[in-house]
Amino acid sequence: MDRLRHSFSALQVDAVLVSHLPNIQYLCGFTGSAGLLLVESSRSILFTDSRYTFQAAEEVFGARVHIAKRGLIRALGELLRSRSGRQRIGLAFGNVTVAQKQALDGAAGKRVRWAGDGNAVEKLRAVKDADEIDRMRAAAKLISEVFEDVVPEIRPGVTELDLAAKIEYGIKHRGGSGPSFETIVASGPRSAWAHARPTSKALGKRELVVFDQGAILRGYCSDMTRTVYVGRAPRKVCYLYEAVLQAQQAAKRAIRPGVKAGDVDKAARQSLERLGLAKYFTHSTGHGVGIEIHEAPRIGKGEETVLQENMVVTVEPGVYLEGLGGIRIEDDVVVTPQGAVDLTTAPRDFLEL
Amino acid sequence: MDRLRHSFSALQVDAVLVSHLPNIQYLCGFTGSAGLLLVESSRSILFTDSRYTFQAAEEVFGARVHIAKRGLIRALGELLRSRSGRQRIGLAFGNVTVAQKQALDGAAGKRVRWAGDGNAVEKLRAVKDADEIDRMRAAAKLISEVFEDVVPEIRPGVTELDLAAKIEYGIKHRGGSGPSFETIVASGPRSAWAHARPTSKALGKRELVVFDQGAILRGYCSDMTRTVYVGRAPRKVCYLYEAVLQAQQAAKRAIRPGVKAGDVDKAARQSLERLGLAKYFTHSTGHGVGIEIHEAPRIGKGEETVLQENMVVTVEPGVYLEGLGGIRIEDDVVVTPQGAVDLTTAPRDFLEL
Repeated sequence: MDRLRHSFSALQVDAVLVSHLPNIQYLCGFTGSAGLLLVESSRSILFTDSRYTFQAAEEVFGARVHIAKRGLIRALGELLRSRSGRQRIGLAFGNVTVAQKQALDGAAGKRVRWAGDGNAVEKLRAVKDADEIDRMRAAAKLISEVFEDVVPEIRPGVTELDLAAKIEYGIKHRGGSGPSFETIVASGPRSAWAHARPTSKALGKRELVVFDQGAILRGYCSDMTRTVYVGRAPRKVCYLYEAVLQAQQAAKRAIRPGVKAGDVDKAARQSLERLGLAKYFTHSTGHGVGIEIHEAPRIGKGEETVLQENMVVTVEPGVYLEGLGGIRIEDDVVVTPQGAVDLTTAPRDFLEL
Repeated sequence: MDRLRHSFSALQVDAVLVSHLPNIQYLCGFTGSAGLLLVESSRSILFTDSRYTFQAAEEVFGARVHIAKRGLIRALGELLRSRSGRQRIGLAFGNVTVAQKQALDGAAGKRVRWAGDGNAVEKLRAVKDADEIDRMRAAAKLISEVFEDVVPEIRPGVTELDLAAKIEYGIKHRGGSGPSFETIVASGPRSAWAHARPTSKALGKRELVVFDQGAILRGYCSDMTRTVYVGRAPRKVCYLYEAVLQAQQAAKRAIRPGVKAGDVDKAARQSLERLGLAKYFTHSTGHGVGIEIHEAPRIGKGEETVLQENMVVTVEPGVYLEGLGGIRIEDDVVVTPQGAVDLTTAPRDFLEL
């Protein structure tokens, strides 16, 4: 909260209103599903509703809790209108709907001016502190272990849904609070859908299977993809797997503080381009991860964001060939002066099962 | 899509731009995570990105698919700017961020005027057709069966997280595509948190345990809460359970087409009020459910929305006493001329385990 306050003068604001729940969790610890956090220079107030009376009392630090009886925006507006003088308040316009903004304008009255907050909280969140990195290492280790537990169950006849269910059971069984996104298990031609949901399709013999999974542990996400082959893989598939692994290594080698995110993406893409495979790599190389599964920075084509020490990002190139299937390999890494350090512990060898 | 087009003249628009993903799924079947659907009077176009090339080709009906290479809003803008004449396009301001609206304004140019769409798609979705009700009945039956499978595992020493994991495993094992929200298992004093996440806390003897869970099956959600007692419940707890069950029955009896949603809420609240317990009922009585876990109509204090035949809503009164814990009972019901018909099949008897 104090780091956010230090940005007030650069943003030319008297306060920042935080509406995005992961930002609220980051700043004051509250994990409920309804909240507005007003951060002023000398104090902070969390507005929530009566469902969260007990939870807020237990979780919130660094902010007073106000239980709003007739709507959060209304309660906030009453407070703001009770203040004397004009106020300029920062707001993340990417996290507020047009309808919410209209309600805020109506509730706060004419003495409040809203200004873009320059994604101030997202920028703070992109660089992790030591405690956050510890949590993320544990979350990455947990999902690695869960996947390795499930590997012996991968065989012809088992359904995508049943494997996804086993992975999600494993996450909670090992103490995670749940999956960080809906687990992907996609087999055969369906593995060419980069974001396929698992279905009741059974694994066939001689099929690629993409597993994309993550866990939330103590409030922080992990994200990991492994691709396996059911049976003995043809040479072409082994070649493609090796190409993706090389692209991933190239991207990891490009990572260090001071490098542009777009250059990391370029490293993966050029590695595939040399083998004529870049056209099958149809998404970005990676993304920041933390309280949310997708957060700053984005590791994509032409991204100008400069990597900083202690950012945590995914590195996940892939190739997708219609009919044949897809191959993706993804790890979470932390940016250090020595380069990318893996948080994910599961091996990357091509598994033929 | 045609029902939406019929509302164009009342909305005074030439087209509607749909940005909310569940609305896109409802109208054209697409389930990817990036999409913009432009519904015009004579045709519809879905904008998505290259991750979804294959998936869109397989899923989408009633719309042409445009794979946007450099951003969905940009591709939409190019199309709109190629059109001659002025256009007035409906947009749900509650589903678009201020930043997105600014990008739309920039991309579409000055000949496009945006108008509120009066939540036209949400209103269509609130009333289900026969196929949707069949799916929701199946989703409600599935979660009922999953819960009944888990009941024998409820005993002192098992953790909240492990029970939640078993429920979520059961959902996929029985063919659901996953939980419709993060499963709640909250025991002892934590059960007084209406939206507690499960933790590694073990169930103790003589504790209330609230289970709030739902499944997604063939694209539709169920939502069900049951409260059990570990051990033989004291008379006070049995009394509270009976009070909540009576409040739920009172709310169900108030449901029929033509009744205001607020009057259903009032029926539950008055039933508790007669026992002096209304002050412990700290949330709304229910909400619509369908493609999303929370959709129109809201069943809360003073809600003016009139219930219509074939709406599907939850009925979920509860009482929460700090220190003692919480009790909530929730079913999904469909509104029929004969009153509320339960979709949820799990018994509502108080289980002392």
